[in-house]
Amino acid sequence: MNGAESLVRTLVGGGVNVCFSNPGTSEMHFVAALDRVDGMRCVLALFEGVATGAADGYARMKETPAATLLHLGPGLANGLANLHNAMKAATPVVNIVGDHATYHRDYDSPLTSDIETAAKPFSGWVKTSPSAKTVAEDGAAAIAAAMKPPGQVATLILPGDTAWDEGSGPAAVPAIAERAKVSEDAVKEAAAVLRSGEPAVLLLTGLALRQNGLELAARIAAKTGCRLLAQTFNRRMERGAGRVSIDRIPYPVDQALKTLEGLKHIVLVGSRIPVAFFAYPDKPSLLSPKDTQFTTLSTLEEDSVHALEWLADELGASAQPIEPSGYGPMPLATGKIDSLTLAQSIGSLIPENAIVVDEGVSTGRGFFPSTRNAHPHTWLQNMGGSIGLGMPMATGAAIACPDRKVLSIQADGSAMYTIQSLWTQARENLDITTVLLNNKSYAILRMELANVGAQNVGRKALDMLDLSRPDLDFVALARGMGVPGERVETMDDFNKAVARGLSVKGPYLVEVMLG
Amino acid sequence: MNGAESLVRTLVGGGVNVCFSNPGTSEMHFVAALDRVDGMRCVLALFEGVATGAADGYARMKETPAATLLHLGPGLANGLANLHNAMKAATPVVNIVGDHATYHRDYDSPLTSDIETAAKPFSGWVKTSPSAKTVAEDGAAAIAAAMKPPGQVATLILPGDTAWDEGSGPAAVPAIAERAKVSEDAVKEAAAVLRSGEPAVLLLTGLALRQNGLELAARIAAKTGCRLLAQTFNRRMERGAGRVSIDRIPYPVDQALKTLEGLKHIVLVGSRIPVAFFAYPDKPSLLSPKDTQFTTLSTLEEDSVHALEWLADELGASAQPIEPSGYGPMPLATGKIDSLTLAQSIGSLIPENAIVVDEGVSTGRGFFPSTRNAHPHTWLQNMGGSIGLGMPMATGAAIACPDRKVLSIQADGSAMYTIQSLWTQARENLDITTVLLNNKSYAILRMELANVGAQNVGRKALDMLDLSRPDLDFVALARGMGVPGERVETMDDFNKAVARGLSVKGPYLVEVMLG
Repeated sequence: MNGAESLVRTLVGGGVNVCFSNPGTSEMHFVAALDRVDGMRCVLALFEGVATGAADGYARMKETPAATLLHLGPGLANGLANLHNAMKAATPVVNIVGDHATYHRDYDSPLTSDIETAAKPFSGWVKTSPSAKTVAEDGAAAIAAAMKPPGQVATLILPGDTAWDEGSGPAAVPAIAERAKVSEDAVKEAAAVLRSGEPAVLLLTGLALRQNGLELAARIAAKTGCRLLAQTFNRRMERGAGRVSIDRIPYPVDQALKTLEGLKHIVLVGSRIPVAFFAYPDKPSLLSPKDTQFTTLSTLEEDSVHALEWLADELGASAQPIEPSGYGPMPLATGKIDSLTLAQSIGSLIPENAIVVDEGVSTGRGFFPSTRNAHPHTWLQNMGGSIGLGMPMATGAAIACPDRKVLSIQADGSAMYTIQSLWTQARENLDITTVLLNNKSYAILRMELANVGAQNVGRKALDMLDLSRPDLDFVALARGMGVPGERVETMDDFNKAVARGLSVKGPYLVEVMLG
Repeated sequence: MNGAESLVRTLVGGGVNVCFSNPGTSEMHFVAALDRVDGMRCVLALFEGVATGAADGYARMKETPAATLLHLGPGLANGLANLHNAMKAATPVVNIVGDHATYHRDYDSPLTSDIETAAKPFSGWVKTSPSAKTVAEDGAAAIAAAMKPPGQVATLILPGDTAWDEGSGPAAVPAIAERAKVSEDAVKEAAAVLRSGEPAVLLLTGLALRQNGLELAARIAAKTGCRLLAQTFNRRMERGAGRVSIDRIPYPVDQALKTLEGLKHIVLVGSRIPVAFFAYPDKPSLLSPKDTQFTTLSTLEEDSVHALEWLADELGASAQPIEPSGYGPMPLATGKIDSLTLAQSIGSLIPENAIVVDEGVSTGRGFFPSTRNAHPHTWLQNMGGSIGLGMPMATGAAIACPDRKVLSIQADGSAMYTIQSLWTQARENLDITTVLLNNKSYAILRMELANVGAQNVGRKALDMLDLSRPDLDFVALARGMGVPGERVETMDDFNKAVARGLSVKGPYLVEVMLG
């Protein structure tokens, strides 16, 4: 058994059953080994950013990592932006990158580059496997590293000869540490803060945003009078009917400052101190009042749900009555398409148990509040800020959850970074309806141009934010990659088109023209 | 004058007149400064790999660098694959990457990453500008670094406050060293080798492949009986009627070994020792016979044309008669489309003074020999092996040379990495006719699967090399980005379609269906 097969068997044995791939010559032995091993699904992407973003979406839903298979330094480079996003989301990814055979690297042939250095800023763990005899063991270590709480990108670099030389057979994955429990002191300190009666927020992210964590947090809030907030961006949130609804810290700095105004305490539950996404001249980086005290109930690495249980118990809140959201979205909107009417209809259109992927950027901001009384659903966001994650993440989520509908809410500018996702959605016949918000601009940058205080803005500058001349035709782009779709210009047509998309088995794209 | 304007004025003053951009919030001041400075053309790309590849194509034709403008670590990451290619081609690029304001970085907001480390493997020079007072000077240093012979990627990282704080005004670019002249010893040694009568090759790349260098090399060959060869991949080559024709070392290892068989000497003229692109089990990495002696006439950094002049003089070859190619392509092919009939027609179709961008990969290999008697033209190749350079490079070359037609020969799989190029071609109305070779596969990987000796190849593996299910429709993709085009299935239609594309002002795409 060669190194490639030893590695593939190790991955399957370690619960890694999907590989998002864009292979090249140096990965051909790995590819050839796929057919000799049952239990590994290999999904082709036409661009590496699709593969890495899909691995993120997959692991967010499946709770176990997918592998990627990328081609040398440039293949890795093309996948780095979405690995950045995965790192910021603490998503486990086993990121496999082929390299030249060990003896060939010194010849500095055209595709040679320093892969380890390129991987490091976007990986929590990096290793180049030295030989076919160790590649299985290195693969097992990569799985363990990826799954180390809270999860991270583990990059395994695979020189060609580690694949084709005789290997060791599969290796077992080392035991993966469970999430650490918080200390009694952390619980007591948080309880003291919440009992103080001073204005306080429980700021949640990570596992605390699943149904159980939200309910515990709501009991604590009901008992103590504290507020609940989620981070602006979160890895995964359970929402809709039957779940406790929670607001997020707004993205715009001024709104965020207003939301956090007057707070004396922020209790961090897996979350981080709230900071502005970007710096702006004359606006603060820190979003909370200067005298706010931070108390850490749990870090992202720790078991936040257990911490909330303990805290609820400590506060006598475990049986406190709460009121989760009921089912009752607003009716479908009619008439003109704008961000408000879209928000209204989406609340009605989200199917039972759907996965909503949110890369709606400027237009999509209002969709979160309007969906709190929708059918129960999961909400996925981009935590790293590198746009072009939405469509790959939808792809990976659909592969993880073949029985759930995916509603991919996608801004136009962001869509173009990884538009190749649509081809993979078509090849794998994934149940994804993409709502493509076409406002013909990087609209968020128009706002940001004002926010940063840029003066005397002229035509050359505005051209850099403008996606017209020529207009993009996303229905044609989708058709070019085998995905059916339609363009809509009224809310009636929007409602029908999205329902149509959600009713068919397979991908569909609804291009929404915004005025 | 703020830092951004100081930098833009420095760039324009330093001869950098085009900026290929995909900006975000942190670059808004730079963008705003564009309208306050004459002489900077800003070209929007919808994906950063388009911007960096265009910068490569531009500088190859213009001989001065373009700037890029990228958005933080992930924006840089998306541009790295084509920066890799630019580095391997020794193309000067002033690669500007925005970052968070200096004081904001410690807050580790979502888009924070280690940009310097990410840039290093793909840059010859990297600097983070510390303040608005030095950003102009740092920009001037970046231009000088980019242009240092033979040319390289110089990455300048621009924290937001270096753009919006008060700057110093423009800075002057330090003097750029001329290419060094070779030593007399180098010339004498090369002359001795060529006088020996032993089998020898002059192996050329870089400036030696312009008209003058090729003529000098041909005179030397005519006088001494040595052979002439170019590297497999070259930055730019002048070809066609009136130019000396030169063969390249073939890409397939077995053909390369055969080409170099029996050689005693290789005289390097800006070139490198010939090595295999990839390692293959049981094939050598070094392509020349083991006892071949290498003699360096000039390195890539040195003035190869001057070296050839001197060598010709030393050998008494300066007036040796030579026979450049005449005009006389084969007639247009008719009937079935295959790599041979395409090669034949392309020889006829290349317009006078065209720029041919060659990312034809497997199908396109035969196009080089068939075009030696075409109209005079320039031939650009991918030197770094990261596919997805062709369409961006065509974009940059067209901007550098608005009076020349660009024929972009593009394989299907490669096209999909940077397909967003077409939108920029449409926006800028660039005179580019893309010949899109659709064979519905990563055909080169089918060959490579056999070459690496992969055994028992099954369906899962073959699926990774297959671009059908769904078929890509490149005419629809082009239309979606505002580029007209048509699909052809016979050579008659191919001939007409390419002629039509070349006759219109603006971009056109001809999708060629291969059996």
